Amino acid sequence: MAGNTFGQLFRVTTWGESHGPALGAVIDGCPPRLPLAAADIETELARRRPGVQAHATSRREPDKVEILSGVFEGLTTGTPISLIIYNRDVKSQDYDELRNVFRPGHGDFTYQAKYGIRDHRGGGRASARETAARVAAGAVAQKVLDADGIKVLAYTLELGGVRATRVDEDRIWDNPYACPDPEVVSAMEARVQEVRAQGDSLGGAVQIRVTGCPPGLGEPVFDKLDAVLAHAVMSVGAVKGVEIGAGFAAARLLGSENNDPLVPGGFAANRAGGILAGLSNGDAIIISAAVKPIPSIPQEQQTIDQEGQPRTLKVKGRHDISAIPRIVPVIGAMVRLTLADFLLRQRAIG
Amino acid sequence: MAGNTFGQLFRVTTWGESHGPALGAVIDGCPPRLPLAAADIETELARRRPGVQAHATSRREPDKVEILSGVFEGLTTGTPISLIIYNRDVKSQDYDELRNVFRPGHGDFTYQAKYGIRDHRGGGRASARETAARVAAGAVAQKVLDADGIKVLAYTLELGGVRATRVDEDRIWDNPYACPDPEVVSAMEARVQEVRAQGDSLGGAVQIRVTGCPPGLGEPVFDKLDAVLAHAVMSVGAVKGVEIGAGFAAARLLGSENNDPLVPGGFAANRAGGILAGLSNGDAIIISAAVKPIPSIPQEQQTIDQEGQPRTLKVKGRHDISAIPRIVPVIGAMVRLTLADFLLRQRAIG
Amino acid sequence: MAGNTFGQLFRVTTWGESHGPALGAVIDGCPPRLPLAAADIETELARRRPGVQAHATSRREPDKVEILSGVFEGLTTGTPISLIIYNRDVKSQDYDELRNVFRPGHGDFTYQAKYGIRDHRGGGRASARETAARVAAGAVAQKVLDADGIKVLAYTLELGGVRATRVDEDRIWDNPYACPDPEVVSAMEARVQEVRAQGDSLGGAVQIRVTGCPPGLGEPVFDKLDAVLAHAVMSVGAVKGVEIGAGFAAARLLGSENNDPLVPGGFAANRAGGILAGLSNGDAIIISAAVKPIPSIPQEQQTIDQEGQPRTLKVKGRHDISAIPRIVPVIGAMVRLTLADFLLRQRAIG
Amino acid sequence: MAGNTFGQLFRVTTWGESHGPALGAVIDGCPPRLPLAAADIETELARRRPGVQAHATSRREPDKVEILSGVFEGLTTGTPISLIIYNRDVKSQDYDELRNVFRPGHGDFTYQAKYGIRDHRGGGRASARETAARVAAGAVAQKVLDADGIKVLAYTLELGGVRATRVDEDRIWDNPYACPDPEVVSAMEARVQEVRAQGDSLGGAVQIRVTGCPPGLGEPVFDKLDAVLAHAVMSVGAVKGVEIGAGFAAARLLGSENNDPLVPGGFAANRAGGILAGLSNGDAIIISAAVKPIPSIPQEQQTIDQEGQPRTLKVKGRHDISAIPRIVPVIGAMVRLTLADFLLRQRAIG
Repeated sequence: MAGNTFGQLFRVTTWGESHGPALGAVIDGCPPRLPLAAADIETELARRRPGVQAHATSRREPDKVEILSGVFEGLTTGTPISLIIYNRDVKSQDYDELRNVFRPGHGDFTYQAKYGIRDHRGGGRASARETAARVAAGAVAQKVLDADGIKVLAYTLELGGVRATRVDEDRIWDNPYACPDPEVVSAMEARVQEVRAQGDSLGGAVQIRVTGCPPGLGEPVFDKLDAVLAHAVMSVGAVKGVEIGAGFAAARLLGSENNDPLVPGGFAANRAGGILAGLSNGDAIIISAAVKPIPSIPQEQQTIDQEGQPRTLKVKGRHDISAIPRIVPVIGAMVRLTLADFLLRQRAIG
Repeated sequence: MAGNTFGQLFRVTTWGESHGPALGAVIDGCPPRLPLAAADIETELARRRPGVQAHATSRREPDKVEILSGVFEGLTTGTPISLIIYNRDVKSQDYDELRNVFRPGHGDFTYQAKYGIRDHRGGGRASARETAARVAAGAVAQKVLDADGIKVLAYTLELGGVRATRVDEDRIWDNPYACPDPEVVSAMEARVQEVRAQGDSLGGAVQIRVTGCPPGLGEPVFDKLDAVLAHAVMSVGAVKGVEIGAGFAAARLLGSENNDPLVPGGFAANRAGGILAGLSNGDAIIISAAVKPIPSIPQEQQTIDQEGQPRTLKVKGRHDISAIPRIVPVIGAMVRLTLADFLLRQRAIG
Repeated sequence: MAGNTFGQLFRVTTWGESHGPALGAVIDGCPPRLPLAAADIETELARRRPGVQAHATSRREPDKVEILSGVFEGLTTGTPISLIIYNRDVKSQDYDELRNVFRPGHGDFTYQAKYGIRDHRGGGRASARETAARVAAGAVAQKVLDADGIKVLAYTLELGGVRATRVDEDRIWDNPYACPDPEVVSAMEARVQEVRAQGDSLGGAVQIRVTGCPPGLGEPVFDKLDAVLAHAVMSVGAVKGVEIGAGFAAARLLGSENNDPLVPGGFAANRAGGILAGLSNGDAIIISAAVKPIPSIPQEQQTIDQEGQPRTLKVKGRHDISAIPRIVPVIGAMVRLTLADFLLRQRAIG
Repeated sequence: MAGNTFGQLFRVTTWGESHGPALGAVIDGCPPRLPLAAADIETELARRRPGVQAHATSRREPDKVEILSGVFEGLTTGTPISLIIYNRDVKSQDYDELRNVFRPGHGDFTYQAKYGIRDHRGGGRASARETAARVAAGAVAQKVLDADGIKVLAYTLELGGVRATRVDEDRIWDNPYACPDPEVVSAMEARVQEVRAQGDSLGGAVQIRVTGCPPGLGEPVFDKLDAVLAHAVMSVGAVKGVEIGAGFAAARLLGSENNDPLVPGGFAANRAGGILAGLSNGDAIIISAAVKPIPSIPQEQQTIDQEGQPRTLKVKGRHDISAIPRIVPVIGAMVRLTLADFLLRQRAIG
């Protein structure tokens, strides 16, 4: 089956192209009687809105969401929740040049290979614009998590090689990089300025910290909690790596160093990242994701056209120089969707 | 739904506990008229057999597989292929001590939290024994890949901090570590000896290299090829991190460094790891996985019992000191299952 | 999972309430490069539009569909096709009386039991209005069938006890009952008039005839073609019975009477209704469905309110006196969706 | 995907051919801590065993089931339950003649068309033998229903035109036809004798009555309870029609006759068959199924061979002359599987 649906019980299907009339999500399986209003969703959408930050794309997307179904008198009804976000401020003519040429680092070539046709305008379905629907759906998922007291914190761990070394929850959104460490914000800023001046782009890393998750979430064997979280997070466009807890560092630890001792009421350490044998263990769930640099850069690059002939291309249009921080709420949304789904899956056998 | 099934069209369901009478897999959706014999499967199973390597568990599992259905006169029929592997040489009494106590780093605590009951013998369903069924199913998946000329190479990238720096395909299985770099085998050996002497265990990293994969495999948005590969690989017990191509290193590259230029006939570099926008691009697919050290160590560890009281535990029984190399064919199998599924998914719209 | 999605590979998710702002469908998995325009869909939607026939509800629904995604320059792209139909001419105040009382024969009581909340206006999600999205999606499915030359004919077999005895394809839509037998139209008309005068409603039966279906469609065991067709057809609100081929009459035949002899090029009879062992046999597929009378009648009926107290109720508002003929294209759409899905499923292993 | 799995949360996958070494079922998603023993399953299997009744096939199948996983110390653990039933008393040489010729009324022709290969021995996967796995799985499903006090009664409604007119629960299994009406048993017997003497076979009808089902089970729109029940029941080999409640009779009722009035505590009638708008209403669920006559008859029939040439065929081997009563527990099992699945689905949102 095609891959535009996520989740087994709390199921989200998204649709829409960057330069089509609208994009949206349909959520099926949301439990009834949860309070839900468009404003709940727009708070989260605002965090992925471009143009807020100095270094971000100049496209303006107001990202007003409309709830078209599934809510009655302020409460979910258990029927599908249809969310729609209209596309505005679309300048498709910026993309005319891309009709027959493939941008390096983008899906142009692979979509053409897969389907034999593609909507080249703004990346079509492969645009980062698509993630607005994920963020909207994630805000609904959070309503399910709220009922169980589960909190999902998302922030920038690293940008352009500058790494946060502590997490101050209250400071994440008071800077333009979703950086939780106030002491490195100016270093991030300096790095961004430097790279913008070079006409280049930056990668980084995002971290998610989930607290309040009860033990036992996840499904053994193939649908381990960490496996589905990796699926969820890696499904976000620019992500090239996912770690749970100690991640790749665990590869170099000894068993005696890596095992988290159990103590009454919990664990004495959390190298496991809150997951054991694919099930949550009640401790904080820690996920890190590597984010590649934005491939659209105002430099001439070597590529080919649809006939396979060599071409050079300087990508025009309005582009961020890093997927960070806009990708931060997107990854957070994917974690929310995953956890809401596993909560419902657990209820079924509980 | 419970998580013992993997794949949408080429679908594998596994079952079985470490100390039950048998374990197995049912494969539904395998195309008809492919040649298949038990011997095809046993070759791959032999690579995850314990006891072959000096450092491995002393449990002997002959791992003879029986094909109970879905094959007629040497060819698949399109109906479910049921594979069974009987458990032999099981010493359940070794585990009596674990009935009421949770081993650190294992699923004992989380299974109990999830189900309120667990088969404590040998880890039950959470045992690495379960992966025999994955390997068996992966060998069937390879039959689907064979028809398209897709080859999946799996090997040890790193063990106990010793890293392979080149890949010699023909040397991988001529040493006890599935190490593709003959020059570091003795260093791995030395590290293993050293850690065994300490009564400890080791982690490492596994890499997969897929060649011959046509462009366009994968499904946009949630079921991106890299997302499902991450799901597949992270679903293997000890894996704590997954990277595609440059992985976490991409976080520190500039866009101009990270973009792979397109040239007539392919790409001039492969930092993407063969996947663009979630679809294969025709280049080699490169996946790396972090493997944590085996949690069962012959040292006294701090833990709790089922009543939550503090206990100390020295894990007895027969245990490897690293999941490597036995995990290598398991991760390879998961990649094979993923690719076979996407091949069929692509045919449906092709 | 919640039940608003149909199909495995050609997957339709519908959403929307009778008195919400809109309703719609998202189709995921539609093959690329098929021609598709809103007009293709509206032709089919027009057949379920109320108010065309003398005996039908007086609510006017223009049922203009908008294609919001998945089509580029007149061709499907392989990405999700989002269809939206706005609700207009909604008179929700007609339903104020139903906020706390359950209409007999409707889902009011069962939705309340399931969800503990319901949108009472016009039946909410349980309204026949929901079927507009099915018909729209079915028109897209027909594009997939067109490529294989598969034709789906839907018509009224019986209305109020008056039964068609022959099928003239060209006459089905030249009368207000989708009756394929011109000779019984006036008898149907007389029966409708009579029952309207009584303030009552009528049931009937619908038949579907599929031609051009290749042999081998369907999946053995649980997803037999007839099983999924029964699922599809029975999922339409008023349907209370489904037959394939001879159906219940087969229960009284002998084996020698019921077996269809094979002859070179096909079958000498078609009591099987074109399906053998759950797979299409290349002959015409014949499905019949029993349709119950519309439960909303302008007579006083015995019921209870939300507190369980006895009440009487005379249902007001605009109602058809039979689900026929508006249900005819809905059942046809469900058959189209089923066949398109099985076509893609067959391609995956073909 | 291939169709050998049924259910969303309580998921059963069956495998096995009539003349292979064994057949079985894997149940994933069964809640933990339910008591389960092989004997619970064999009681139900005994009811579909051939050779008990005078008119049934002379093949002897002891149908001993082994539970290979998912049960620990007499309780389910939440992990997959693997059930295996070995095939014994197999006489494959009886089927040599059928290697290249298609039996009328069987799946021989359609399996060949679908897969281009088939196991011709005893019908392979299309054999009624496959239903043993369904019955075994259904017995496990009943354990889930037991916890909620749901009872599924299955019986013969009609055999060879002789119809039961009352249901005495205690008498169903005291006669060889699963007939709940002691007064018509001898008429059924006479009809069976008569048809056996003719060398022919008989059809009939089976009815299911579910009591104790809470209101609200089922999922709106496509996965209505009646839709999935129709799917489940129609997936049983010989079934050609399914009715819910009044079924086809509802097509000739008026709305005022067909509506079941609500009264405090329930409904004053049950023409709906316990289902309203696709959700259970708390009343008894009534399902009827038409069963076609067994196609294997000892008469010469017209057919073709694999090259499409005309042939005549007299089917040899051991065959029942009616699928009744052996099909009765099979249909009951499918209803049990459906209800267990919907119970778990409801818990997820409850």
